[in-house]
Amino acid sequence: MNQKWFYPALILSTIASAAAKFLGGGQSLQFALACLSLLFWAGLLGKATENVAHYAGERLGGLLNATFGNAAELIIAIFLVKEGLFDMVKASITGSIIGNLLLVLGLSLFVGGLKFKIQNFNPLLAGHNASLMMLAVIALVVPAVFLRDHKTVSPSEVETVSIIIASVLIIGYFLWLCFSLITHKKELGESIDGAPNTQHEEPDYSKGMSILLLVVSTVFVAIQSEWLVHTVEHVAKSLGWSELFVGAFLIAIIGNAAEHSAAIFLAMKNRIGAAVEIAIGSSLQIALFVAPALVFISLLFNNPMDLIFTPYELTAIGVSAIIASSISRDGSTNWYEGTLLLIVYIILGTVFFVV
Amino acid sequence: MNQKWFYPALILSTIASAAAKFLGGGQSLQFALACLSLLFWAGLLGKATENVAHYAGERLGGLLNATFGNAAELIIAIFLVKEGLFDMVKASITGSIIGNLLLVLGLSLFVGGLKFKIQNFNPLLAGHNASLMMLAVIALVVPAVFLRDHKTVSPSEVETVSIIIASVLIIGYFLWLCFSLITHKKELGESIDGAPNTQHEEPDYSKGMSILLLVVSTVFVAIQSEWLVHTVEHVAKSLGWSELFVGAFLIAIIGNAAEHSAAIFLAMKNRIGAAVEIAIGSSLQIALFVAPALVFISLLFNNPMDLIFTPYELTAIGVSAIIASSISRDGSTNWYEGTLLLIVYIILGTVFFVV
Amino acid sequence: MNQKWFYPALILSTIASAAAKFLGGGQSLQFALACLSLLFWAGLLGKATENVAHYAGERLGGLLNATFGNAAELIIAIFLVKEGLFDMVKASITGSIIGNLLLVLGLSLFVGGLKFKIQNFNPLLAGHNASLMMLAVIALVVPAVFLRDHKTVSPSEVETVSIIIASVLIIGYFLWLCFSLITHKKELGESIDGAPNTQHEEPDYSKGMSILLLVVSTVFVAIQSEWLVHTVEHVAKSLGWSELFVGAFLIAIIGNAAEHSAAIFLAMKNRIGAAVEIAIGSSLQIALFVAPALVFISLLFNNPMDLIFTPYELTAIGVSAIIASSISRDGSTNWYEGTLLLIVYIILGTVFFVV
Repeated sequence: MNQKWFYPALILSTIASAAAKFLGGGQSLQFALACLSLLFWAGLLGKATENVAHYAGERLGGLLNATFGNAAELIIAIFLVKEGLFDMVKASITGSIIGNLLLVLGLSLFVGGLKFKIQNFNPLLAGHNASLMMLAVIALVVPAVFLRDHKTVSPSEVETVSIIIASVLIIGYFLWLCFSLITHKKELGESIDGAPNTQHEEPDYSKGMSILLLVVSTVFVAIQSEWLVHTVEHVAKSLGWSELFVGAFLIAIIGNAAEHSAAIFLAMKNRIGAAVEIAIGSSLQIALFVAPALVFISLLFNNPMDLIFTPYELTAIGVSAIIASSISRDGSTNWYEGTLLLIVYIILGTVFFVV
Repeated sequence: MNQKWFYPALILSTIASAAAKFLGGGQSLQFALACLSLLFWAGLLGKATENVAHYAGERLGGLLNATFGNAAELIIAIFLVKEGLFDMVKASITGSIIGNLLLVLGLSLFVGGLKFKIQNFNPLLAGHNASLMMLAVIALVVPAVFLRDHKTVSPSEVETVSIIIASVLIIGYFLWLCFSLITHKKELGESIDGAPNTQHEEPDYSKGMSILLLVVSTVFVAIQSEWLVHTVEHVAKSLGWSELFVGAFLIAIIGNAAEHSAAIFLAMKNRIGAAVEIAIGSSLQIALFVAPALVFISLLFNNPMDLIFTPYELTAIGVSAIIASSISRDGSTNWYEGTLLLIVYIILGTVFFVV
Repeated sequence: MNQKWFYPALILSTIASAAAKFLGGGQSLQFALACLSLLFWAGLLGKATENVAHYAGERLGGLLNATFGNAAELIIAIFLVKEGLFDMVKASITGSIIGNLLLVLGLSLFVGGLKFKIQNFNPLLAGHNASLMMLAVIALVVPAVFLRDHKTVSPSEVETVSIIIASVLIIGYFLWLCFSLITHKKELGESIDGAPNTQHEEPDYSKGMSILLLVVSTVFVAIQSEWLVHTVEHVAKSLGWSELFVGAFLIAIIGNAAEHSAAIFLAMKNRIGAAVEIAIGSSLQIALFVAPALVFISLLFNNPMDLIFTPYELTAIGVSAIIASSISRDGSTNWYEGTLLLIVYIILGTVFFVV
């Protein structure tokens, strides 16, 4: 951040947000201040990610960012699982997946595409991302088709199936990390962006400082996200919005603030490969790691959660995966492809709002 | 048209068709004569399009042709909307989409492929067409999944959702025109046909004459189409066919006569890119512009139409989009890919006939 | 087979299996011995195929293998059709399709990918295979959507639709053979494997001997498969497994033993194109030729079978086709793509087991 006013604004908004929280300000005030503070922290997180990516290589940087970006979602989801609010958990998982595939990816392609006519990235990676998205959709759709409304299947069998599927998804996710970061690192990891990086700009911070900023800003993004979530329900109720819409859109948009800023920053620097990696990587991580992990975490609380989503959620996830994979498959993007993703996001938002 | 007999035959069949119409000939006679006249006008339209495409460049020519080709469908649909015959409107929209994606495209690839072993066109355009088809399918499937048979959603909410979705589709369609004809014209518009156009034949008419012929033949195709539609119901009833089959197949095949002749003419000249542009472009225009426009036109008549299609129609549109996008995605076509599309058309025709 | 012990073991296990069968051994013993003998015969079949492929060229070799590999399934299915056990027929068709697309293809890519970092094959063939898979899915899904639970459609209409669809599928399959083996043989048939075949090893047998071994081993694989099927029901019952799971998984895995060994052998020799051709070609042959042929064969027995599959079977076939086509479309494979297919197979196996 080159602007002189950035750090003072960051610190002041954080203090104001904390003051409203602990000194008992009105819920709407808490909401507004948490929102403001979150924007600054997300901006810092984006900058830190960009720097870490500079040192780590873009794929590992993208993975780090997706992981740090999902920390907030995971923490919130664990609290919801503990309370047994499984519908809200699944709504927020759905919202995170479609938010990343449509909103984060859409905005990145759109903003990046306004600046650069055509942006390219590694088509091999794009193909694998598309196949992994198909796996995620299949893993969520199949149990719903076979087990939802099936009379001869007992709840304990549903739970067993959920645990088996969760296990193979987590194994599949770790094998993917093994594949992409070890055995085929060279094929996927180098030259992730098809266009040569002509800028070669100097990083803003040293390596250690970049990592420290990444961790600190992630922690604060998580804290502010949680505060937001606590107040958002009140704000939503006063506006008359449904739980499903709030879970799948409002919470997800806020929870993905970090991915948003990071991915858009990278897209504007013509590093579209790293931006795609954050957006698609984050949604894959949620579907293939966070969701299955929550099944196991629910067992620790003696309150087992299954992996059976509603037809609405499956439709939303399915159409998002199809359009995102159709667009990203050729490894070449432009502003109109971003527009297409945003249109689908608006359509889904509209129907979720009225249902 | 080099044949000496063409213009006399065109004029005579048109006079005969008009005479049967206004002097009160039998409905079956009217049908047969309108059919005959339509064939000649569609032939002239195909020739005119080819000439205009010669002057306008292939993409703009394809767009012009798709637009002129859909004029007939739009006019017929407006009359149906005015009468409140929404089921028939949706059946004919469905029929136009699958007719273009399967029959027009299938015949073009088949006929072109018999003459040329492999025909190539711009794969970037193919990828975008596939993504736009996915958008069209999503825009029609999502409201049906969320709002059909949903008890807590009121009719006025369904109407509001339809208007919102229609708005974003029309915006998306105009942004697509902006993208493909302005910002990325060069990338999509030049060398739309991968194979070099070795023929460089002279156009048959001057630029002004070509445009005039395009307009005149479109008008007559529209008129003859409407006469056909009026008599086709009688003919269908005497044959014992269902309304759904007549709307989705018979009317659509006749209404697409213009696209048929134009696309096949171009495919036989190895201009497969322009042929694909007519077939896929026409179905995209119907899904992304004609259908949403009818929602707004229905408001003018104080008789609001929603965008909720039946599961049968959605299945037909969905499978057509999937197979057409699977086949066209690589930008390379041959006779067998045309055969595949025609097989799917026969399968759909068979089940629509018995339902 | 270089090992000295191979032929004695093959002959001994076959004699032991026959003895148990005809001298009335226990069903579990018959099962175990048929299994053992089948493994050796499948191994010989794999070796014979490899040799025939060496002489015939890889595509024709792959087609021969797919055909010989499906002989067992076809014979078993005809017996089931004769008995009117249509549900079991459809379950085993489903199982063969998903077994080939997920298990055979998955193991080939995985095992081949462990030995070679990236394996390539003709992307034009991959694209056509993907489109044909889409056709197969469409041909099975469309009649189910339109005709299952439809009250105004009579059984005789369902039968007529099934016969029409079966006819166009068989015509489509023979046109595909005509396309791939005659008109476009050069484009698809040569250099099916992208990587140059650097080994150029000598075939083990002469041309005539290879073909003889292919025929003999196919016959014995078929015989042992049938013996297995007769005893497998007893074994399954004593284990408490459902008919659906046995039909779609156990019988299919055993029936595909030949494809398994052949495809994996080829993948380990870096002939991934031929391995893919066996796996995908075999599933296409079942969907586009075996299943329609059974409709006609059922007419001979005066016991007409329709082509309407259950939603479970369609889901399984659909997701298998989607993930297999997503993975094979780029004509490049690696061990992780094999893993993805195996994960989907495990997920489907799990839900089929409990339903």
